[in-house]
Amino acid sequence: MSAVSRWTVDENATIGVGVLGYAGVARAHLQAILRLPTVFSVPRRPIVVAVAGRSEAAAASARAYGAQSVYTDWQQLVDDPRIEVLINAAPNDVHAEPCIAAAARGLHVLCEKPLARTAPEAAQMVAAAATAHVVHMTGYNYRFVPAVQLARRLISEGRLGRLYHFRARFCDESMIAPDTPYGWRHSRRRAGSGSIGDLAAHAVDIARYLVGEISAVSAATRIFVNRRPTPGGGEGIVDVEDAVEAVVEFANGAIGTLEASTFCSGRKNLFTFEISGAGGSLVFNLERLNELRVSVGRDGVDGFRTILVTDPDHPYGGRWWPPGHVLGWEHAFVHQLNRFVSAIAEGGSVAPEGATFDDGYRCAVVCDALDQAGREGRRVPVRVES
Amino acid sequence: MSAVSRWTVDENATIGVGVLGYAGVARAHLQAILRLPTVFSVPRRPIVVAVAGRSEAAAASARAYGAQSVYTDWQQLVDDPRIEVLINAAPNDVHAEPCIAAAARGLHVLCEKPLARTAPEAAQMVAAAATAHVVHMTGYNYRFVPAVQLARRLISEGRLGRLYHFRARFCDESMIAPDTPYGWRHSRRRAGSGSIGDLAAHAVDIARYLVGEISAVSAATRIFVNRRPTPGGGEGIVDVEDAVEAVVEFANGAIGTLEASTFCSGRKNLFTFEISGAGGSLVFNLERLNELRVSVGRDGVDGFRTILVTDPDHPYGGRWWPPGHVLGWEHAFVHQLNRFVSAIAEGGSVAPEGATFDDGYRCAVVCDALDQAGREGRRVPVRVES
Amino acid sequence: MSAVSRWTVDENATIGVGVLGYAGVARAHLQAILRLPTVFSVPRRPIVVAVAGRSEAAAASARAYGAQSVYTDWQQLVDDPRIEVLINAAPNDVHAEPCIAAAARGLHVLCEKPLARTAPEAAQMVAAAATAHVVHMTGYNYRFVPAVQLARRLISEGRLGRLYHFRARFCDESMIAPDTPYGWRHSRRRAGSGSIGDLAAHAVDIARYLVGEISAVSAATRIFVNRRPTPGGGEGIVDVEDAVEAVVEFANGAIGTLEASTFCSGRKNLFTFEISGAGGSLVFNLERLNELRVSVGRDGVDGFRTILVTDPDHPYGGRWWPPGHVLGWEHAFVHQLNRFVSAIAEGGSVAPEGATFDDGYRCAVVCDALDQAGREGRRVPVRVES
Amino acid sequence: MSAVSRWTVDENATIGVGVLGYAGVARAHLQAILRLPTVFSVPRRPIVVAVAGRSEAAAASARAYGAQSVYTDWQQLVDDPRIEVLINAAPNDVHAEPCIAAAARGLHVLCEKPLARTAPEAAQMVAAAATAHVVHMTGYNYRFVPAVQLARRLISEGRLGRLYHFRARFCDESMIAPDTPYGWRHSRRRAGSGSIGDLAAHAVDIARYLVGEISAVSAATRIFVNRRPTPGGGEGIVDVEDAVEAVVEFANGAIGTLEASTFCSGRKNLFTFEISGAGGSLVFNLERLNELRVSVGRDGVDGFRTILVTDPDHPYGGRWWPPGHVLGWEHAFVHQLNRFVSAIAEGGSVAPEGATFDDGYRCAVVCDALDQAGREGRRVPVRVES
Repeated sequence: MSAVSRWTVDENATIGVGVLGYAGVARAHLQAILRLPTVFSVPRRPIVVAVAGRSEAAAASARAYGAQSVYTDWQQLVDDPRIEVLINAAPNDVHAEPCIAAAARGLHVLCEKPLARTAPEAAQMVAAAATAHVVHMTGYNYRFVPAVQLARRLISEGRLGRLYHFRARFCDESMIAPDTPYGWRHSRRRAGSGSIGDLAAHAVDIARYLVGEISAVSAATRIFVNRRPTPGGGEGIVDVEDAVEAVVEFANGAIGTLEASTFCSGRKNLFTFEISGAGGSLVFNLERLNELRVSVGRDGVDGFRTILVTDPDHPYGGRWWPPGHVLGWEHAFVHQLNRFVSAIAEGGSVAPEGATFDDGYRCAVVCDALDQAGREGRRVPVRVES
Repeated sequence: MSAVSRWTVDENATIGVGVLGYAGVARAHLQAILRLPTVFSVPRRPIVVAVAGRSEAAAASARAYGAQSVYTDWQQLVDDPRIEVLINAAPNDVHAEPCIAAAARGLHVLCEKPLARTAPEAAQMVAAAATAHVVHMTGYNYRFVPAVQLARRLISEGRLGRLYHFRARFCDESMIAPDTPYGWRHSRRRAGSGSIGDLAAHAVDIARYLVGEISAVSAATRIFVNRRPTPGGGEGIVDVEDAVEAVVEFANGAIGTLEASTFCSGRKNLFTFEISGAGGSLVFNLERLNELRVSVGRDGVDGFRTILVTDPDHPYGGRWWPPGHVLGWEHAFVHQLNRFVSAIAEGGSVAPEGATFDDGYRCAVVCDALDQAGREGRRVPVRVES
Repeated sequence: MSAVSRWTVDENATIGVGVLGYAGVARAHLQAILRLPTVFSVPRRPIVVAVAGRSEAAAASARAYGAQSVYTDWQQLVDDPRIEVLINAAPNDVHAEPCIAAAARGLHVLCEKPLARTAPEAAQMVAAAATAHVVHMTGYNYRFVPAVQLARRLISEGRLGRLYHFRARFCDESMIAPDTPYGWRHSRRRAGSGSIGDLAAHAVDIARYLVGEISAVSAATRIFVNRRPTPGGGEGIVDVEDAVEAVVEFANGAIGTLEASTFCSGRKNLFTFEISGAGGSLVFNLERLNELRVSVGRDGVDGFRTILVTDPDHPYGGRWWPPGHVLGWEHAFVHQLNRFVSAIAEGGSVAPEGATFDDGYRCAVVCDALDQAGREGRRVPVRVES
Repeated sequence: MSAVSRWTVDENATIGVGVLGYAGVARAHLQAILRLPTVFSVPRRPIVVAVAGRSEAAAASARAYGAQSVYTDWQQLVDDPRIEVLINAAPNDVHAEPCIAAAARGLHVLCEKPLARTAPEAAQMVAAAATAHVVHMTGYNYRFVPAVQLARRLISEGRLGRLYHFRARFCDESMIAPDTPYGWRHSRRRAGSGSIGDLAAHAVDIARYLVGEISAVSAATRIFVNRRPTPGGGEGIVDVEDAVEAVVEFANGAIGTLEASTFCSGRKNLFTFEISGAGGSLVFNLERLNELRVSVGRDGVDGFRTILVTDPDHPYGGRWWPPGHVLGWEHAFVHQLNRFVSAIAEGGSVAPEGATFDDGYRCAVVCDALDQAGREGRRVPVRVES
């Protein structure tokens, strides 16, 4: 069989990854690791060395992704010498400690958003990563949706002109049923905040990414359902907001609104934003994430165009499928991982395309301001510690 | 010709109407007068007796609508003994005085929105109409769009359950060109406010109509273009807001956002609102005013339904055309006029379907609060004088 | 009252119109007569002299439109010396005879579509109008929707390039209930055909208007419900097609599909067409008649644009309302009437903007071919008698 | 490290797969193999043993997918004793021979669509698979889109009632540029047909899957660009149709239209179909493949619902991501592969959910009829050899 090539995996050409978490968003990271080399040409291919998770299910899940080990404790993951990279997809109260420990050990860290429960906690993580000189990334994955990248391209090319408005909503109905069980997301101690950190944080990151720094916020928050059943038959007290409504003001003069709520009947995953400037406007909707609606120019047939962002000249164009063959929600994790792995290879930063820990911190400052503005009933300036 | 019927117009069966204004929104009122009897069975048919307007064009326009007279001064209109009803479609600074004079003379009054430049001015109009015991209406015409009426029906039937959220936007690009000439709408003295009174007022009225009273607002406002050319070659100083962004809080616990801006590139007349409750959600968009998008119920094929509100069992169903034969923007003025004329015939009020002067006043209180909140950077409670 | 102008209607400046029919589509014509002078500057203003209709309701309806007389017989209408124009909105079997009689008396004639039950019957009407040298028009009103006019403009400017495809559907659910009563539309003797003449005819006219002459058709037709209850308690035999599905081939090489059916559950008035050429495509949907979706050009942000056809530079722009203030289904009748009245004033033809009787005949030839193709199971060439 | 689990891949629990092809649609199959065990619980996990492809790129691609070998000749693939399953993603003229050879060797075969260039060729493949008693599947992947599965569920539950209409279009602009190079798809000898086999075949399969057997077709076909440049600087003669327009008639009485064209400017991958019955209608559009639009029932708020087919109770619900987290084009290949692998494990057939070789043959019979109907200008009955 002279025409046959055979090869073995070159271990030197891999990057050992440890994943903290195995369900939920962790699966998106795990699948991204599997698919990265089939879409991007990477100098070193990430492989899942180990998964850390407390339940029985962790082992079965890990196996499906080709992990060699499964741990019940994140410390074991961080200590595994085969691991060079930590992907932290744990609940919010398990972000700071493992990430700081990993950085201290010299691991590069990709941490899910929100980076921490509060801005001060996030600031500690920024400091740890900076001290350790590791590559750090906050998992604001929606930056890596092709339509969002196209939006950024159009804005940076000046096609929208001076920006006047940003408005974003992140709405679902995930908590609208009063009998949805109490979980860590309902606890201020564990989650830091409710829909602010879970949903609004994405909108804040996109606002910063596409429009610029937010200078002040005004807000109202509400808890619509105060008590929820616990799995054990008891009752948990919800002490984080179900919804936040806000006015946002930008350093560049633009103003707008921002909403996040898990009480929007009929909405499944509606993260939508619209940006308007002197020269044009654009609209994105995560439920139709392959599309970007854009109004620019004046050629006699003006109107919002529905761009199907799958053409070869679009961001990530040609990497996946032919035009019109749409991508799914998790594809952005492959793009994000590619940016992370490239930054490791280059010895650089994931910025400006990706969100660093510093971006995660700045986003947390705005989130804290939203909470404060809601409580105090006044416009709260956004103040970043430098 | 035995099969022929002949008739003459029974003067006793008409209502003499005087229209202050002849262009812009006045044309919608004038066409509504022409078409009302072809759509509704009215005891007394309104006819245009006279039109008042300062320009030469007023006479030509008036004639097309069958008006018998044209005046250059609103006082003449109010004094014309053939006139029983005043429709006031003049600029905001010509609302209070003619309406109060007309009421004093016993005329029923339909005044365009915003009812006045400020809440105190609106309060004077309320008092004048109450004293005179005339029928009074504020031209919040969007209440009379069939889809809005259907929204009200669904909410009052409880199909949305307890309401959690309201968000509305009224966006166009009418002022985005810096060389759009300075006019009365740019002057606080003449208009009272900018996009608040012109656009946001509609959203406030719909919020009150569909959700309930607003209890507090937080806001930011902006003037993006401060000086504009006057027709005479000079320059006018814009002292009203181009845009307002707000958080609204309702007495019933619902919260939401409200935006109005004339700086939204690509948007023509985008008045859209979404209301969510425990049982469902609905979405309206004025640019597709024949449609109401609704998510309610659980029957295994859940999703937002695009209801084409033209069926016989829909509001105003069967009055115009067969199903699917859509209505235009001005049809709501016919419905509004029918309500007004019916209230005159019944000797009652246009409420609750239509907006009274009291509604106009209450809306003005919220508008004033939006302006104040933007200036003061704090949550402003909505306080109605009773 | 020195500032008062008074005037009387100048009888010389009016055109006396007789309307055959008072309900259904006749109402759209009647309202158009009322509104024409408020939208267009017409040398002579049409007024409704008389309405002809058999029922009691005719008189009440006529009165609402200001008609001076009502007749029970179309012959009386045609003989009324005050009448200069006949608008024929009667059932299909009452098209030819009144129109031919009216033309013989020198009346200008606007006849509803389909012009006749068959092409030979239409040919007689063409001959009568030509002999009498009167202005003639077939009521293919959708030509006068602004978005359709814009489509024609774009195509004639060459922005779509060589045309490859046309596909159209006219679907509603008007006959899907088996207990919908038997009426004249179910009778071949009275209607000529079913959905072919009622719905497909519009698509054929638009195809001819926008793409060019159809050279051949292949088709299948179906009667889904064969018997329907008559108002008298009996049963009528449906002998016209409920639905037609066709392939159309154009003289210029384009090919496409054409469908018409009254058995499309959930569809209210879905007349939609899409035209594609080497340079672009456009899509129209009557249920959203203010919009035209267009894909043209290559400027890096390609996609179908949703043009809200209400801007000043759009067809009929500025005549009605400001941008984004949408029109309804019946507005096209005002535009159509303006074309008809203008042709009378100019002593010319309604072509090419409007459909003449010749257009009505040519459309009927295609309709007959559709019927024949369905019955014979073969491609039928379209042959016009010249 | 007591908490650590380690494992090695159990070779007995894998299925060796050989993939003929490495680019284009082959990549979708290859990624599906990688992801299958992360989404479905499979008794034996497929692994890529070898890829066959003629170019240098094959080796690099194969490696990314973890293939152990790469061959330049399909015969080597079929002969590799480690391989138990052949996935044939080669051009149409390389479908029959490798599949027949593989079946003869006892390999299970998943062959891309169209199964063969003609119905007789497909019939040979059916016979070979039947004789060999292997599991066989034709890659009509769109059956496995969740929204299509939901459509099938709704129809089989009778929610659409008696079916009246089917209309489908598969349109892109892939060949509209005259300088798009000549390739195997332009050659009747190699491809069998043009847009009929490439695009219309999907619509035919879906028609059969959702509505039932097609009994007759009428059609027109066109070649718009007859000659295209070859990579070598010469010119190729296009002898397959660029577009087909057809009327389809079903055994159950439904009728409709079917279009496929690669000359639809602005369309990227528009495979859309609408099915109407006495009780409701549904619409699918591949460019928004996560959605199914459905009109059913009568509850006072009727209208087409846009169902985001990502809920737990939807087909494949809960396997991927939370509600509203959309899938991409290639996810259907994972579902398809799961069906194939399950059939192998069960020793059964992929029917009725998946398309067998018999389905591929029946589809080919309709495709041949479309071609014949276009050439002969007559209604062609669909005749299956049994």
